[in-house]
Amino acid sequence: MSIALIVLAAGKGTRMKSDLPKVLHPIAGAPMLIHALRAGAALEPARVAVVTGHGAEAVEAAALEHDEEIACVRQVEQLGTAHAVAQARGALADHAGDALVLYGDTPFIRPETLERMVAARQSHDVVVLGFEAADPGRYGRLVMTGEDLDKIVEFKDATPEEQAITFCNSGVIAADGDTLFDLIDAVGNDNAAREYYLTDIIGIARSRGLSATAIACDEAETLGVNSRAELAAAEALFQARMRADAFEEGVMLQAPETVHFAFDTVIGPDTLVEPNVVFGPGVTVENGAHIRAFSHLEGCHVASGAVVGPYARLRPGTELGEDVRVGNFVEIKNAVLETGAKVNHLTYIGDADLGEACNIGAGTVTCNYDGVMKHRTTIGAGAFIGSGTMLVAPVTVGDGALIGSGSVITQDVPAEALALARARQETKPGHAKRLFDMLRRKKSNMNKGSH
Amino acid sequence: MSIALIVLAAGKGTRMKSDLPKVLHPIAGAPMLIHALRAGAALEPARVAVVTGHGAEAVEAAALEHDEEIACVRQVEQLGTAHAVAQARGALADHAGDALVLYGDTPFIRPETLERMVAARQSHDVVVLGFEAADPGRYGRLVMTGEDLDKIVEFKDATPEEQAITFCNSGVIAADGDTLFDLIDAVGNDNAAREYYLTDIIGIARSRGLSATAIACDEAETLGVNSRAELAAAEALFQARMRADAFEEGVMLQAPETVHFAFDTVIGPDTLVEPNVVFGPGVTVENGAHIRAFSHLEGCHVASGAVVGPYARLRPGTELGEDVRVGNFVEIKNAVLETGAKVNHLTYIGDADLGEACNIGAGTVTCNYDGVMKHRTTIGAGAFIGSGTMLVAPVTVGDGALIGSGSVITQDVPAEALALARARQETKPGHAKRLFDMLRRKKSNMNKGSH
Amino acid sequence: MSIALIVLAAGKGTRMKSDLPKVLHPIAGAPMLIHALRAGAALEPARVAVVTGHGAEAVEAAALEHDEEIACVRQVEQLGTAHAVAQARGALADHAGDALVLYGDTPFIRPETLERMVAARQSHDVVVLGFEAADPGRYGRLVMTGEDLDKIVEFKDATPEEQAITFCNSGVIAADGDTLFDLIDAVGNDNAAREYYLTDIIGIARSRGLSATAIACDEAETLGVNSRAELAAAEALFQARMRADAFEEGVMLQAPETVHFAFDTVIGPDTLVEPNVVFGPGVTVENGAHIRAFSHLEGCHVASGAVVGPYARLRPGTELGEDVRVGNFVEIKNAVLETGAKVNHLTYIGDADLGEACNIGAGTVTCNYDGVMKHRTTIGAGAFIGSGTMLVAPVTVGDGALIGSGSVITQDVPAEALALARARQETKPGHAKRLFDMLRRKKSNMNKGSH
Repeated sequence: MSIALIVLAAGKGTRMKSDLPKVLHPIAGAPMLIHALRAGAALEPARVAVVTGHGAEAVEAAALEHDEEIACVRQVEQLGTAHAVAQARGALADHAGDALVLYGDTPFIRPETLERMVAARQSHDVVVLGFEAADPGRYGRLVMTGEDLDKIVEFKDATPEEQAITFCNSGVIAADGDTLFDLIDAVGNDNAAREYYLTDIIGIARSRGLSATAIACDEAETLGVNSRAELAAAEALFQARMRADAFEEGVMLQAPETVHFAFDTVIGPDTLVEPNVVFGPGVTVENGAHIRAFSHLEGCHVASGAVVGPYARLRPGTELGEDVRVGNFVEIKNAVLETGAKVNHLTYIGDADLGEACNIGAGTVTCNYDGVMKHRTTIGAGAFIGSGTMLVAPVTVGDGALIGSGSVITQDVPAEALALARARQETKPGHAKRLFDMLRRKKSNMNKGSH
Repeated sequence: MSIALIVLAAGKGTRMKSDLPKVLHPIAGAPMLIHALRAGAALEPARVAVVTGHGAEAVEAAALEHDEEIACVRQVEQLGTAHAVAQARGALADHAGDALVLYGDTPFIRPETLERMVAARQSHDVVVLGFEAADPGRYGRLVMTGEDLDKIVEFKDATPEEQAITFCNSGVIAADGDTLFDLIDAVGNDNAAREYYLTDIIGIARSRGLSATAIACDEAETLGVNSRAELAAAEALFQARMRADAFEEGVMLQAPETVHFAFDTVIGPDTLVEPNVVFGPGVTVENGAHIRAFSHLEGCHVASGAVVGPYARLRPGTELGEDVRVGNFVEIKNAVLETGAKVNHLTYIGDADLGEACNIGAGTVTCNYDGVMKHRTTIGAGAFIGSGTMLVAPVTVGDGALIGSGSVITQDVPAEALALARARQETKPGHAKRLFDMLRRKKSNMNKGSH
Repeated sequence: MSIALIVLAAGKGTRMKSDLPKVLHPIAGAPMLIHALRAGAALEPARVAVVTGHGAEAVEAAALEHDEEIACVRQVEQLGTAHAVAQARGALADHAGDALVLYGDTPFIRPETLERMVAARQSHDVVVLGFEAADPGRYGRLVMTGEDLDKIVEFKDATPEEQAITFCNSGVIAADGDTLFDLIDAVGNDNAAREYYLTDIIGIARSRGLSATAIACDEAETLGVNSRAELAAAEALFQARMRADAFEEGVMLQAPETVHFAFDTVIGPDTLVEPNVVFGPGVTVENGAHIRAFSHLEGCHVASGAVVGPYARLRPGTELGEDVRVGNFVEIKNAVLETGAKVNHLTYIGDADLGEACNIGAGTVTCNYDGVMKHRTTIGAGAFIGSGTMLVAPVTVGDGALIGSGSVITQDVPAEALALARARQETKPGHAKRLFDMLRRKKSNMNKGSH
């Protein structure tokens, strides 16, 4: 069946105390909205509408960056969830099939759960997602008779018997699209807040002879985020999931609580990750690699047998071949390192191609920026770059070439050539002693002068 | 009313297994004693006396460094808390008004709690601070009749009914200063330890017809520290408080449990702090800054829009202007960076002034120390310092100047000038191959020789 | 009495999803097998046999690297624990005395526990190690009458009364060696798995009129590891033990949960360890040192008063003398730093000897590798190495010598001499402006061209 997603993303999130719209606050490197869209994407929806409001431009930009086919519609006034869904009517006018309402601030619903909702639609006109609440508090209660959902009762309107119900409403709803909009037309705002509530459609549906049911998911899936502390709790929950998944796949995390993943991190089995490693978005690590302590990776690929860190920073566009070694206090950006290349210490490699088994000495810098433009550095297989070398790009060092320590290389170096750019050493006997003696006298005089 | 604080700070802390006096062990970068003094300072005390004993000189130095008006008095023999308080009599001889007894190893009492004690003094002669103990154990019990405190009973002297009391004594006491010292005069040492106990003044006061009461605070406020493990637990508690406060103020902590604050850290709303960041004392960060992973800040100011790290170290005296960028493996000390200055990689900037939008290449060092004295480096707005530059201070680079990569700059560079200090590159075809061949033969011969 | 250890280490550990044999997975930097061997070593065993199977070569190599006296025997087919023990018969043929069966995947048994087992052998023929299980689940139950162990009942064979027993079998067994092998001969494999179970020897022993008992240890000691998640839990447990031990010895850990120890880390009292420090194997730190945040130490010694970090990396072979200072983004490898030497910033020191109170400037590199061999650098007492210096080893800088910033030093420098290798600074007025103007025009033209 053809599915349309309607994702509500108009809220301000006042309790976040932030200028950033609520649904753009990130978890594991991706806005909450994107997490919700990724969960929904498992249904292969024919259409996706995102309803924006507060910070609409930024939210729309994030949605379109994720998927340019998304229809963004604006809810100019915030008149309730039914009103928000109604804004999507035009965008889905030519859609025949089901519609599923999701929330941009509820990032944890599992794709399998949504698939179960869609399956339940075969036997019921409206399907609501519920959960057994450990502490039902003021959640709306789902009043069931067998597998039929009779109504959703707000806590404040609930009888004592209804208050005792622990099966609660997540807000996620699926129905035939035309049916959904028809039901919403009948929703009124005769309540204290003067808002149109989506939950009211259940009562309306049942009064029209339609069937409704609710299926259950884990309470953790329905976790919403309304404050900074809740966002951090959601981040922690997501990280715990990622760490458990990593163990399942045979990744070794020595101190899992100190490893931070992005939403899309992929790591192969038998890769060892030491304590205090941060993965930003876009990282893939093959099996049998070794990510040492205090490393930071973003937008990069690490092949089998590579050893990264400690204190290595891999920035976007980095590709490490097999058995590459990137050591401490080394930054790599937008660079390809072929099999067995070694960059062990205190180096910046940016916009570069490094050949097989080349060796880059400590303190080397690819001078890739001339103040206006970026340029590329190419280093051949087996080349040896002496420590403290400045490679002024654009520049090419050939296979097997050798650069003497402390050189500034501005011209290409042919294969197997030696290049040096170095002043002759002058040694002046006794000069150090005389110089220090003079400096100490000077300091002593200055101190006297200051009294 | 005029208030005097008496802070007891004479204890040795044998269980700390340390040469450092107990009250000088730090929590969040400040000695416990300073935490106690900061809490008391909220009452704007007219006088503060600190009673020292073990490690008196170090404790006095710390107290006076915090506030040079503090009167330090020594308790030469440790004869109990009443005896300790008595040592402050001389220092407060001319003080008319209340006296409040605090403890240098009880760092968590909230200022609001002390204010409630002072308020309670309006209706009672002596006010004791108590707490509902989750596990009363061997704490002294507060025996109340209504809001009157009848007596404080030590656990070992308590009847079964008294042992069942869960309202316990924190040791913090407020009374009129003259009254306090009069009561203390009546305290005896007729007990197993031959010590003079401050708690005894309640019984003496009541027997003299004075009134006493106890007010309650959270048990966590009364946490004392007697061992390394308790100190670490106190640190953890304090950090948890700081993190919760940060969330309340709209700061975003991605992984709060990995961010370590100092006692005086101030961070503005909408600032994002990534995992694994350490704030030492004296840091202020404006709103909307971004502190990336693995950064370490002490004694510095970061303005709005600045991005720090990953792996940036800001040392005391660092001032980052708006939109400044300090990147990985960069150390900044005692330096002012104007709006938009960029120091992205592997650099040491010490004792320097960097102009607006200047750009410092990777591997740059301000050579600020000549072995005897420190000197200053000045870099103009829009200047571009090529990678691997040594700036030998004192030296000035003018606005818009350009330094070629790998230069050692010992003379001032005028605005818009180009400076270079670089040897000419020599390239010797085939030399690398011949050199490596020779080295390999040599190694091979050495290995043969070793058999 | 003479003791032989039999350590079972043949398991594959399918649930680890790893090519590494299970017993070689590390906890705190040492394979689990080594932890088990270290616990057993406290008994000063006359003989140690390790029974290998899956990954036998790697397991044997690890065992022999730990102690070359170990006898490794192979269990070619995995036919149960009794069968595994039987493989050790030949290796222990000439051993007279007790035999103790341990497990390579049970790394936490305390030496004191094993000593208690050996002591219990004085009054009983067979001694089993048991534990009170918080959740007995499917563990084998120890059926006791007084201090006599009647039998070990597998959960599935247990009566309801036996299932209610919470005293469970750890698998660790001690007996006279000859007796042990005699009993094993009588064990059959008449069970669903067709395996020979070591636990069956208790019933056989009792039927032969031998006595058996069980002594109890903490359940945590018997923790076995079968999956990545359990390995991480074991690591966490071990780290918690190490942190508690450190507190007991007067070490100060500001944020203990962020400090990671190796199995053999030794730290003296009054040493302060800041947050986020990783100790690899082989580290000793004397008392009163200061290990700052984000430091990483392996195979090194740090003397009293030394300050390390933040962001310092000490690699194997590093010896820091008293009051040495190693600062941020500094890597030290295979080097001796005498009293008071300072290496404060962005430096690589490898294969070097640094004299007392020498000062190494930022950006210094010991160029120890010529592409084929490693060479040594020697720096004298009180020498001052200017920033950005390349020391091309082998090279010696004498006492009190001074190297100018940015020099490449290829020849020895005598004591008290000044050495420079530096090109003269050329300054070209107005050139920077003209150059940037040209580059900007060029970029602008390129951008036009791309439309």
